[in-house]
Amino acid sequence: MRYSVGCSLPYTVVTPATMILNVEPLRGEQQRIIRERFTVTPQIGSEPHRAGETGNLYRRLVLPPGSYTVRYEGEVEMLPSVSDPQAVDEVPISELPLEVLPYLYPSRFCPSDMLGRFAWRQFGEIAPGHERVAGICNWIYEYVDYLGGSSNSSTSAHDTFTQRAGVCRDFAHLGISFCRALGIPARFVSAYGWKLEPQDFHAVFEAYLGGRWYLFDATRLCPIDAIVRIGVGRDAADTSFSTFYGQVDGGFKDVWVNQVGGRDDDAAWTTEAVSVARE
Amino acid sequence: MRYSVGCSLPYTVVTPATMILNVEPLRGEQQRIIRERFTVTPQIGSEPHRAGETGNLYRRLVLPPGSYTVRYEGEVEMLPSVSDPQAVDEVPISELPLEVLPYLYPSRFCPSDMLGRFAWRQFGEIAPGHERVAGICNWIYEYVDYLGGSSNSSTSAHDTFTQRAGVCRDFAHLGISFCRALGIPARFVSAYGWKLEPQDFHAVFEAYLGGRWYLFDATRLCPIDAIVRIGVGRDAADTSFSTFYGQVDGGFKDVWVNQVGGRDDDAAWTTEAVSVARE
Amino acid sequence: MRYSVGCSLPYTVVTPATMILNVEPLRGEQQRIIRERFTVTPQIGSEPHRAGETGNLYRRLVLPPGSYTVRYEGEVEMLPSVSDPQAVDEVPISELPLEVLPYLYPSRFCPSDMLGRFAWRQFGEIAPGHERVAGICNWIYEYVDYLGGSSNSSTSAHDTFTQRAGVCRDFAHLGISFCRALGIPARFVSAYGWKLEPQDFHAVFEAYLGGRWYLFDATRLCPIDAIVRIGVGRDAADTSFSTFYGQVDGGFKDVWVNQVGGRDDDAAWTTEAVSVARE
Amino acid sequence: MRYSVGCSLPYTVVTPATMILNVEPLRGEQQRIIRERFTVTPQIGSEPHRAGETGNLYRRLVLPPGSYTVRYEGEVEMLPSVSDPQAVDEVPISELPLEVLPYLYPSRFCPSDMLGRFAWRQFGEIAPGHERVAGICNWIYEYVDYLGGSSNSSTSAHDTFTQRAGVCRDFAHLGISFCRALGIPARFVSAYGWKLEPQDFHAVFEAYLGGRWYLFDATRLCPIDAIVRIGVGRDAADTSFSTFYGQVDGGFKDVWVNQVGGRDDDAAWTTEAVSVARE
Repeated sequence: MRYSVGCSLPYTVVTPATMILNVEPLRGEQQRIIRERFTVTPQIGSEPHRAGETGNLYRRLVLPPGSYTVRYEGEVEMLPSVSDPQAVDEVPISELPLEVLPYLYPSRFCPSDMLGRFAWRQFGEIAPGHERVAGICNWIYEYVDYLGGSSNSSTSAHDTFTQRAGVCRDFAHLGISFCRALGIPARFVSAYGWKLEPQDFHAVFEAYLGGRWYLFDATRLCPIDAIVRIGVGRDAADTSFSTFYGQVDGGFKDVWVNQVGGRDDDAAWTTEAVSVARE
Repeated sequence: MRYSVGCSLPYTVVTPATMILNVEPLRGEQQRIIRERFTVTPQIGSEPHRAGETGNLYRRLVLPPGSYTVRYEGEVEMLPSVSDPQAVDEVPISELPLEVLPYLYPSRFCPSDMLGRFAWRQFGEIAPGHERVAGICNWIYEYVDYLGGSSNSSTSAHDTFTQRAGVCRDFAHLGISFCRALGIPARFVSAYGWKLEPQDFHAVFEAYLGGRWYLFDATRLCPIDAIVRIGVGRDAADTSFSTFYGQVDGGFKDVWVNQVGGRDDDAAWTTEAVSVARE
Repeated sequence: MRYSVGCSLPYTVVTPATMILNVEPLRGEQQRIIRERFTVTPQIGSEPHRAGETGNLYRRLVLPPGSYTVRYEGEVEMLPSVSDPQAVDEVPISELPLEVLPYLYPSRFCPSDMLGRFAWRQFGEIAPGHERVAGICNWIYEYVDYLGGSSNSSTSAHDTFTQRAGVCRDFAHLGISFCRALGIPARFVSAYGWKLEPQDFHAVFEAYLGGRWYLFDATRLCPIDAIVRIGVGRDAADTSFSTFYGQVDGGFKDVWVNQVGGRDDDAAWTTEAVSVARE
Repeated sequence: MRYSVGCSLPYTVVTPATMILNVEPLRGEQQRIIRERFTVTPQIGSEPHRAGETGNLYRRLVLPPGSYTVRYEGEVEMLPSVSDPQAVDEVPISELPLEVLPYLYPSRFCPSDMLGRFAWRQFGEIAPGHERVAGICNWIYEYVDYLGGSSNSSTSAHDTFTQRAGVCRDFAHLGISFCRALGIPARFVSAYGWKLEPQDFHAVFEAYLGGRWYLFDATRLCPIDAIVRIGVGRDAADTSFSTFYGQVDGGFKDVWVNQVGGRDDDAAWTTEAVSVARE
């Protein structure tokens, strides 16, 4: 299935500023960029950097004071692997590719070291594999309220676990924390999410199972096979859509995701195991 | 100068366990491994993995129940770059290699996002560059007590900043946090530290200045030009000496660092800017 | 039923010190002191103070350097009110004696303001009254591990809720926090607890229901009708057994609780609602 | 000097609610109420409760759905004791009235147990007494930014110490925490503060020195001898202006403080030690 995705982000730069953007989708065999365009108005150069270990595309802009609109638009073909969840096992630590080890470590917003006792008690009995991570997502969906404004940029999974409210980013951080506490590598995914209302950037997570990265969304706000991944990382700190150094004011952010050639009733809301990445 | 370094780590494995070790020094042009040997007694195979982005050597051991001694011994030649601190500048965000960006992000033990206001007030007036980071280390040395037992494996720089006590790992986390808050990339370094008393593994940090990684040790416990680096990472979570999955009891850890062919009075305690890594 | 309770506490005072003790049981119609004796060896005067709002007996000792043993021994008759739990209701805020309001406020170790969402979701459906607070205790007993050494003097109910482990003091703090979050006044109770193993001081809590303070012990370590109350307060900060100003080292603490004239099989482990205090 | 103080607080009660108010000034020999009036429009009864240990006047209102305006207006004569700061000593723990002990304990928003090391290092060398507490206030004024919106109702002095920003309530919590850490009893004071801009309720603190409670305001926003005290307590949790149980929406709060018969240039901004309470 193809998706037309994009965003238009207005900024007012008050003092000379450097901006780091990460809004362009990842490229891969199962997430193919058909066409895309990145523009800044008024025109200004930008320096792209594809991070080695993740493939995230960061773009640096050095901006004199003034008003700018950053715009990305792309068409992306999603070719996810879809499997029977029961066939997707956990990988024992003894067999895990050592490259994925960092996704077992606690990070700023995913202090998995603090949630181990709970995680084992709550999820230890569930069959290992996709089913266990799905169990984690079901628990989060059931016990945490999705509530705009209930968290902020310094909210960690520890806070969310106590306060039992958050937004997509918090749901992802909590899911990642539980996975890591159980010895399952997990990482944060910033994304364009189809059918998200109101439309905005989205955040989900991936768990490393059966030799691949499987997608999970504890918010249930978007069909998981229609997630167009932008950046992956240890948590939201790695995949911020935009970071400024200098004084910059943001305006109204416009984000869109449309199915190309599909009909709305094509939305699958699949419960199958979905993966678009091996690495 | 050459150093003979090593460790002998006894473990009792109670249930089948996987262990990840990171005790072997980094290799580089300025930190040359002359000879080295890694052994496990009784003999058992191990799988080494050199992490792409850092060069850290992780080694995985899959261990049946029993008693083991892990032993590393090596001889390392240190060829540090030594410069005039006043000539070592900060690199503006607009010119920073984008590979070092992750070392600006907050991490589990270095929540730099929470310490920005203090960092700017306290260190904002110091001349940018090596001098500013040295100022950070001086502040930590003066205002934080080095006190064994005052922290644990879940202590973050936020805790240390409030409690004003910690050990080498906490001193490094706090220094890193202040640097990142000021826009200076900084990373954790686990190390063999000469003259450390009692001898144990050590922890220091590196800040990215003038196009290189410069070493800093806010504890003042070891000469900075005699630090033999083992692992680098975002914080201690990335560079744990040993991590177990399974039930494992540790015994008395023996760590040693000796100067080869030098005399004790060669200890420089330099105040020059010292770097052994470009990347 | 009568209980012979007491403690013997050795201290070495290094620099002149002031000590505040709170080890002598509360006096009341339902907790009658038959006889008691407080001694310090070598003999030294102490200044007792019975706090107005709680009746706690604090005793101040001003101690020159030296070795001391503080000893309390008493015989206490417990005459608890025992009622049918289903008949013990919550008191609406509109009818609550205003004196008990402070026991609704968050305190150092009971940050009830952070646990409201969870408390209402988990306990909101249980019938109000003794049954609801018993439900809170059952939840704590089931989901929190009693584990010596898992907490320290700065551990709050927020920490315990996340880490899911603690000792009697932590169990009490968590129970109090949930009660307050639900609008039920609750307070900390330090106590001599019969059958506690190993014998030590104990901590439980009281909730204000049906016009009285009812006792609850989420640890299930002692029969609730055999709790000899020492001090009540907002949390452990108010009822510390001993607080020092000056350098004082403590030795081996001896605490005892014996039934007088009873037989061990008199231990009731009642599930009735038990109260020994109106105020 | 006399002050005309008051407030007008509009509320919309959505579901039947109980409200606890604490907006009426304390009464005492040095804070004399000349006249006052408390009204609710439409007229509804309220139940006053003067707390025994503090003298705070709490008022309970049981409100059916509807719109209400709560209004207090009073005229208060302030007769503060004014002394030479150098003559105001600390009271050693060995001589402290035991009634003030609770103001040494850590509380929800004043976790003094976490700030001891810093407090002793920073303020330990200052001469004990009024001068030391003034030194604490100077430090807060200098190192913490007064910044509306930088904190919320769950912000503790631990957060403020790290983040270095807050409002009057946070400044008071931090001052109290440092005092308690140093063994000086300290309590929170909600107040009407003359010359506060924009006019609102104010928060300051009192430290127990030389046998009295002395007023301190680290914000420097109001003359300390023109503070009309409303409630005292361990921290803001004890002295909330209004607390609701039920769904209540607040409207625009109007608060006023005017000097009666004085002229604006009477504002003293005294640096003398000011106290209006013995207990």
